[in-house]
Amino acid sequence: MSAIPEDFIQKTAQLSDDVTRPFPSSKKTYVTGSREDLRVPMREVECTPTHTEQGEELNPPIYIYDTSGPYTDPQVTIDLRQGLAEVRANWIAERDDTELLDGPTSEYGRQRQDDPELAHLRFEHIRQPRRAKAGKNVTQMHYARQGIITPEMEYIAIRENNKLQEMRGDPRYAKLLRQHAGESFGASIPEEITPEFVRDEVARGRAIIPANINHPELEPMIIGRNFRTKVNTNIGNSAVTSSIEEEVEKMVWSARWGGDTLMDLSTGKNIHETREWILRNAPMPIGTVPIYQALEKVDGKAEDLTWEIFRDTLIEQAEQGVDYFTIHAGVLLRYVPLTAERLTGIVSRGGSIMAKWCLAHHTESFLYTHFDEICEIMKAYDVSFSLGDGLRPGCIADANDAAQFAELETLGELTQKAWEHDCQVMIEGPGHVPLHKVKENVEKELADCYEAPFYTLGPLVTDIAPAYDHITSGIGAANIGWYGTAMLCYVTPKEHLGLPNKQDVRDGIITYKIAAHASDLAKGFPGTQVRDNALSKARFEFRWEDQFNLSLDPDRAREFHDETMPKEAHKVA
Amino acid sequence: MSAIPEDFIQKTAQLSDDVTRPFPSSKKTYVTGSREDLRVPMREVECTPTHTEQGEELNPPIYIYDTSGPYTDPQVTIDLRQGLAEVRANWIAERDDTELLDGPTSEYGRQRQDDPELAHLRFEHIRQPRRAKAGKNVTQMHYARQGIITPEMEYIAIRENNKLQEMRGDPRYAKLLRQHAGESFGASIPEEITPEFVRDEVARGRAIIPANINHPELEPMIIGRNFRTKVNTNIGNSAVTSSIEEEVEKMVWSARWGGDTLMDLSTGKNIHETREWILRNAPMPIGTVPIYQALEKVDGKAEDLTWEIFRDTLIEQAEQGVDYFTIHAGVLLRYVPLTAERLTGIVSRGGSIMAKWCLAHHTESFLYTHFDEICEIMKAYDVSFSLGDGLRPGCIADANDAAQFAELETLGELTQKAWEHDCQVMIEGPGHVPLHKVKENVEKELADCYEAPFYTLGPLVTDIAPAYDHITSGIGAANIGWYGTAMLCYVTPKEHLGLPNKQDVRDGIITYKIAAHASDLAKGFPGTQVRDNALSKARFEFRWEDQFNLSLDPDRAREFHDETMPKEAHKVA
Repeated sequence: MSAIPEDFIQKTAQLSDDVTRPFPSSKKTYVTGSREDLRVPMREVECTPTHTEQGEELNPPIYIYDTSGPYTDPQVTIDLRQGLAEVRANWIAERDDTELLDGPTSEYGRQRQDDPELAHLRFEHIRQPRRAKAGKNVTQMHYARQGIITPEMEYIAIRENNKLQEMRGDPRYAKLLRQHAGESFGASIPEEITPEFVRDEVARGRAIIPANINHPELEPMIIGRNFRTKVNTNIGNSAVTSSIEEEVEKMVWSARWGGDTLMDLSTGKNIHETREWILRNAPMPIGTVPIYQALEKVDGKAEDLTWEIFRDTLIEQAEQGVDYFTIHAGVLLRYVPLTAERLTGIVSRGGSIMAKWCLAHHTESFLYTHFDEICEIMKAYDVSFSLGDGLRPGCIADANDAAQFAELETLGELTQKAWEHDCQVMIEGPGHVPLHKVKENVEKELADCYEAPFYTLGPLVTDIAPAYDHITSGIGAANIGWYGTAMLCYVTPKEHLGLPNKQDVRDGIITYKIAAHASDLAKGFPGTQVRDNALSKARFEFRWEDQFNLSLDPDRAREFHDETMPKEAHKVA
Repeated sequence: MSAIPEDFIQKTAQLSDDVTRPFPSSKKTYVTGSREDLRVPMREVECTPTHTEQGEELNPPIYIYDTSGPYTDPQVTIDLRQGLAEVRANWIAERDDTELLDGPTSEYGRQRQDDPELAHLRFEHIRQPRRAKAGKNVTQMHYARQGIITPEMEYIAIRENNKLQEMRGDPRYAKLLRQHAGESFGASIPEEITPEFVRDEVARGRAIIPANINHPELEPMIIGRNFRTKVNTNIGNSAVTSSIEEEVEKMVWSARWGGDTLMDLSTGKNIHETREWILRNAPMPIGTVPIYQALEKVDGKAEDLTWEIFRDTLIEQAEQGVDYFTIHAGVLLRYVPLTAERLTGIVSRGGSIMAKWCLAHHTESFLYTHFDEICEIMKAYDVSFSLGDGLRPGCIADANDAAQFAELETLGELTQKAWEHDCQVMIEGPGHVPLHKVKENVEKELADCYEAPFYTLGPLVTDIAPAYDHITSGIGAANIGWYGTAMLCYVTPKEHLGLPNKQDVRDGIITYKIAAHASDLAKGFPGTQVRDNALSKARFEFRWEDQFNLSLDPDRAREFHDETMPKEAHKVA
């Protein structure tokens, strides 16, 4: 008998219909790779024929890169209490370089496991955690550098190509494949993404595959400037609001609208348990900022943080399956005074925690001094680094200043160090930057951090529009993506004002899908324009339903149309 | 006794409170120029002090360029039946180069005036129209080329400076005046906008002042790349929906949120009367596309259009006070076949009307062949040209193609012709353009059209997001503004789907105010960053009310904040 109360099960077992409903006129298809258990999901959108004077012209289906996971597959029975199927289980086991542990090896993980009062919140089917065998390194970068193409890499190649080669061989797509030559500012985007290309990019550190061995439910994806531009979303409960089931629902909601990765920024109670529910049901990589949880463990007093507490938190989360950690190891003591004359000082939460710690102890932070030990942990589970920009500008005035760029150079130094361990690394970036200063951020990041993937928040190109910061930042995001940023961290309309609700999350994601797609079009990523072309053709031919179905948000497009032109006649005119 | 029914008066005399309510903590101030009747409105936002350990630090007021007209001045009694006060009446009269006509000289204008059935719709206080005396040219460009600084030019100089010189002399603003050096791609933005600079820019055609002598209610503004980037909005009734009072309310709503100019694209009934109500109550320049109305006069049959009907329409509208006309005179017969291989053909309504006419008659359009006569009309009332891009691309695939750029070259030829008449000209631009092809549009426009101000719709940087096209186009708009476009025509979320309601208009305008402001920051327009700095300082100091009040949309910022952090305590923390 379950220890979990009935009402909690009721709530968590079910998702609301609007997060799982398949998209209109769409079906889930899978492309099988070199092995039966390598099945890459895509969304296939059916189109209606065009009626011409010469008869019917058939419009072929359009394939959409699918982040929604098993939730939109009517063949899959979703039970959040069971978690998702383990896509990667065999791949990890076959490599035979990991071992199953008896239980969590972190002190905190064991405490939570043994606390009977948490039974009613706990995910029921917690697996034994897995860890690299002694002396083994289980990062995708390590395999790549050995010349090994993992199933994850093959999966990604198929996923990124999105059936482009098949379309090229099919005359029905000839006109739809027309695409402008791009301007990619020195990126090296091939005409076809091969598994070997994926391996090579990961080996040289230009791309990462966040894929913890304890997150086998993951559908592998890649972050790198020679691949599709990705979008990260954030969720997180706080002391103020929301529960476990709300957070899980938000995660699925994020996947639905196109979130490629998701950061769980929870700071409230039971974040360990919440994280477990999220991970077991997450088809996308999950990131966290471990210092947030570490701070809770010392009751919010930054100066009481220690390496030991932080280390235990890393292991706790790595054994749950977190795929990437934001670590603000670049906040050096000597950089803190550089922020004194700023208009808005240090606005990164992680940055200000570490600055406070450094000043209190008058020494470099344990994140910096213990960086090699952090790498040892990361490579035992394949957690990727997301090196945090703790000194990012909090306003237009502070953009591209000495503090920001000093930290960026240190992140470059740490990138080299992590790479010596074959650890995967991406670099976080700002923030608030006027339009003409955006490019410099990418150029400096590529130079200082040796082309490690850049992962930026926005940037917002003006400070004067709270309540519309998804838009102010979406402008910056489209530009920075074009210049070479690999992943864009979304911003919702509630940024600076409050906590986003479901509609805010949707608005934020769609805005960032627009930015990412605009970047890919501008860079000339092969096949990107097919969807634009198909939708525009539908629009020109008044095939309203096809126009809606091919859009980023079919529901809202249809709803807006029906508000003023409600008649079916208008849709088939 | 009025012939207008009581209920119509009730409705039109009053605007809803939400379009006239003054902005929070804001007051209307006026800067008086060299003469008493030259009073330039600005919005002054009061800020609260910062509480520091050393005591209170005062935060000086911030001035905002104010497009809202007399509607937000509590000292002004608004009566839509009377229309606005005639700001420019003396200036026009003093020049003594115009004459009052007995009545409309257009045939259609007389018909409407004499039709007793229209009495219930008609604006009551129609003035006698004014026209240049024989042999006179009353364009602002003509005065500028004579070396005359008109009151309109002085007004604009004060308005564009927005008290910057006063702030520079006031130590309270020292920190707030910090600003990044811009990148303006060859614009010539001075440190201070002088009346002489305004004159010089208008004289050389790099800027226009749309200001019909029959629109004395106008608060003068300027469109040119060396001035603040402007935003145009569109309204218009159609056969489907909306009434005169709704259109007037939308015009005031547009002014409130920051629309600098407004196009009346009405195609329904009574557009002559609707236009009169709008003009008499409009503080901003009003533009139209006269071919739309001309087409109504021939029952929608493009091939039945004639020069005579079009000419009469120009005069009809010029005598009402329309400030700029979109004229698609660049659609040449030989360009039409260039659109044959396009994915979405000709999508401009004006463009397709003219292409149809050209093909039906197999001759160049009357807009092109009668261009000199059009100039004669324009200069008799000072109506500015907005040379339309009838062959603009309707999708990403068709961007920057031969048809589009061929037309642009013809627009350059027509610009030269118009300038020979001292007529003011701006050039319309696309549309749908991927991010990396945006700059080429500005470069070609500046080269082909001799730096005449560019006025673009968006452009949308992807086609895949109907229902979010304010955002897809806002991204393009911010970029094209930065590169040198002088005015951005807004797009609402309903673009491609239906008719915008009030909220859509607000979303569209705010998005475009963001784009325009981001452009100005990137170009380094002097003083632009003051508002960002003041708002960011307020944010950093948790002065929530100041943050809201300084934002583009104080109402929504406050509302979003209060949704999740409703307590007053959070706002003053």
